[in-house]
Amino acid sequence: MPFLSSLYGSSLALLTDLYQLTMAYSYWATGCREREAVYHLFFRNAPFGGDIAVAAGLETAVEFIERLRYSTDDLDYLATLTGADGSALFSRGFLSYLGRMEFDCNVDAVPEGTAVFAGEPLMRVSGPIIQCQLLETTLLNILNFQTLIASKSARVRQAAGDDTVLEFGLRRAQGVDGGISASRAAFVGGADATSNVLAGKLFGIPVRGTHAHSWVMAFDSEVEAFDVYAEAMPHNAIFLVDTYDTLQGVQRAIEAGRALRRRGFEMGGIRLDSGDLGELAREARRLLDAAGFENARIVGSGDLDEFRIAAYKRAGAPITVWGVGTKLVTGDRDSSVNGVYKLAAVRDPGQAWQYRMKLSATPGKMTTPGILQVRRHAQAGVPVADEIFDQGTVGAEHRRFKLDGADAAAEALPAADGHQDLLVPVFRNGERVYEPPELTRVREYAVAQFRLFAGVDTAHYPVGLEARLDQARERLIASAGA
Amino acid sequence: MPFLSSLYGSSLALLTDLYQLTMAYSYWATGCREREAVYHLFFRNAPFGGDIAVAAGLETAVEFIERLRYSTDDLDYLATLTGADGSALFSRGFLSYLGRMEFDCNVDAVPEGTAVFAGEPLMRVSGPIIQCQLLETTLLNILNFQTLIASKSARVRQAAGDDTVLEFGLRRAQGVDGGISASRAAFVGGADATSNVLAGKLFGIPVRGTHAHSWVMAFDSEVEAFDVYAEAMPHNAIFLVDTYDTLQGVQRAIEAGRALRRRGFEMGGIRLDSGDLGELAREARRLLDAAGFENARIVGSGDLDEFRIAAYKRAGAPITVWGVGTKLVTGDRDSSVNGVYKLAAVRDPGQAWQYRMKLSATPGKMTTPGILQVRRHAQAGVPVADEIFDQGTVGAEHRRFKLDGADAAAEALPAADGHQDLLVPVFRNGERVYEPPELTRVREYAVAQFRLFAGVDTAHYPVGLEARLDQARERLIASAGA
Repeated sequence: MPFLSSLYGSSLALLTDLYQLTMAYSYWATGCREREAVYHLFFRNAPFGGDIAVAAGLETAVEFIERLRYSTDDLDYLATLTGADGSALFSRGFLSYLGRMEFDCNVDAVPEGTAVFAGEPLMRVSGPIIQCQLLETTLLNILNFQTLIASKSARVRQAAGDDTVLEFGLRRAQGVDGGISASRAAFVGGADATSNVLAGKLFGIPVRGTHAHSWVMAFDSEVEAFDVYAEAMPHNAIFLVDTYDTLQGVQRAIEAGRALRRRGFEMGGIRLDSGDLGELAREARRLLDAAGFENARIVGSGDLDEFRIAAYKRAGAPITVWGVGTKLVTGDRDSSVNGVYKLAAVRDPGQAWQYRMKLSATPGKMTTPGILQVRRHAQAGVPVADEIFDQGTVGAEHRRFKLDGADAAAEALPAADGHQDLLVPVFRNGERVYEPPELTRVREYAVAQFRLFAGVDTAHYPVGLEARLDQARERLIASAGA
Repeated sequence: MPFLSSLYGSSLALLTDLYQLTMAYSYWATGCREREAVYHLFFRNAPFGGDIAVAAGLETAVEFIERLRYSTDDLDYLATLTGADGSALFSRGFLSYLGRMEFDCNVDAVPEGTAVFAGEPLMRVSGPIIQCQLLETTLLNILNFQTLIASKSARVRQAAGDDTVLEFGLRRAQGVDGGISASRAAFVGGADATSNVLAGKLFGIPVRGTHAHSWVMAFDSEVEAFDVYAEAMPHNAIFLVDTYDTLQGVQRAIEAGRALRRRGFEMGGIRLDSGDLGELAREARRLLDAAGFENARIVGSGDLDEFRIAAYKRAGAPITVWGVGTKLVTGDRDSSVNGVYKLAAVRDPGQAWQYRMKLSATPGKMTTPGILQVRRHAQAGVPVADEIFDQGTVGAEHRRFKLDGADAAAEALPAADGHQDLLVPVFRNGERVYEPPELTRVREYAVAQFRLFAGVDTAHYPVGLEARLDQARERLIASAGA
């Protein structure tokens, strides 16, 4: 189901920074409206102190681009904006141009679920510079956030091994879409299901949920609460046992489970939401097994993340379902990916591309010029090096490259028997040429990618510029200094 | 302008955790559908290591409640959900009940912009327990996030003093609404304007923006870039000077400013986005003043938050406009408020309220039973103590109260010559009885509240339970232990 069009009634064309519009106007008003440009979207550091991120959000971004139209009330609003002297910021002619604008850029992007390193373009946008600018903010908003959460989810997935991971974060997510897009991205990164019903409806993600502490508190006793719940939901009976005293709660769940069994149903399990989950789970497991409920699962929840899950698993906690909320859907202390969208080339009609880069006293803030592609070299199916090269350079060599940040000369690529170019065509002259895969396929691919890279020393994985691209960049730096 | 209805085409009724619906169904299916309840929404700790938070999001929450209807496709989706044995999770009768449901709760809430302490209800919802549950997740989602960002913004506002604060965070916000609601909440907390054009359109927040590095890079030289920009936007000319070399950029901005002056316009100023903003701003100020541009403002941006702004100001940086992005709209390392929504009383039709509380080995996780109100006592207009009392107790004493977490007996309230009850009626039997104020009024109130509490020792500010409420709570704990 298309996400944005099912959810948003409003045009999202104005979901952008004002300076994109003032720049667009300035190009338009000064005879530069035919200028073309190439931009790359990439992040400067992988989130969570890791080396790789899971690219996510492309389908949402594609839908945004396809739907991009300035509505009449968008234009009416823009007409009300004024500069410092009170005069209109935008001319009527420009607003009418916006209203008629047909998107005709080329977009190439890394498919969702792909493992990517810092500095590698997730997306390349080329075409009229005005249109490229008008896309920037929204593309960053969508791809930064979904990549953040898919990457967090992949870490949680890795910690949980073959256990079930449920995403439970909606109540503390950052707003409506902070919840919905997070549920989508968490699923992409490897979560099995979500508590978020609207995300289930919009994306087909499996939804899960049983009852809260308030259910137990709404009855005179825990026994009554469990019995009444089991009466209504015999086929969805996971009892939350820690409202008053956890182990007493387990005993009462066992009693409710026995009553269920007499009716021909099997209790699904119990949920622990507080205390030392490892200790309590071991004791609960013992009680459940002794009572003949060997198949009842133990769900753990409450302030979990990949670190706590890993610690509980190392300690042998018999929990097989993990409910992960706030820290998964917000990224916890890493609440953003530092994605940027940088100009790499410009040309006026009929002219050749002129390469451009941002200079900075901080080398990490310098950008790479060109029309970039990422080639992932592999040996026997295992990635061995990522080489960023310029598609605009005829016959790029692909034999030597310079490692990111290395001072030394270019070195030979590691031995490889195959490669894959990560960016694939998504739009050509404004027409979509890419069919986003089903979300379950995206998730399988993401999980496989993370598993593949689990066998790679990602901290020392070579990522670099193809030798001729590196030389072109060095020449540009030298000429700017001159 | 109503926010949700202008933005979302979809019903948001399913923006909830599945367990709210399985609990609602279970009440409905087991003869408890007439049961009534009282819930309080509060947070357990103020965010950012502070003592107070700025309540925000009420207008959005009110709109959500008013619009709450299950659409046909919501119900069709719910009909597809199954339990462990593959049978339908919800009966047709229940779905038809949901489709016909008329909201008839009472809601009381703290007006937006009010400074609140941990443990104080921001909202009280009472009425049919099914409806109270169905509101929980969405209310938490809306109020948690907007309160987080309004509180961050108030801190930034305080650090910036009388300077201008611009919120610039959309590109790294947590999704579409992570941006839109953040812009709203940042304005409530004291930001003066936003870069987010859609937030400007939806909420009437002033929008600001000029040009980016990419503008400068799209021209053959910085001189040309500034001149062309000034040609198009003479009344909105703030030049970003750090694309190549910052102080050289300042010189070129001065040249562009001179050209503007010859055309009868005045340059607005310059923007610094990298490096040591304090050092660069001092040098830039010197250059601007020497060239006769004493009124040109210096805008600082780039990874700012309240701490960096305060440090630059202490060091005397001549920056008077602060662009604050990622850290303002995500809360940075504090990416959520730990708001909860807890049952405090239940009753069946015709019965008296039975008070309920969550017990826990962790005292901070225990809740307070009753039908709660917060009374803020003040002396000469300055708050001296917040007293949480039970509106259900006839003639609550309001003379002695027990400090939160204190072991000792109740103590006398500090001397006060007035008080204000923080929760105001918002819905009565499903009818809205509250008119949310204009957002500019909310902002003024929030800024005044933060200024008021700047003169109060908030770390030692007394917040406690009225003595009879405290005794009732202790009795409930004792009886549960029995």
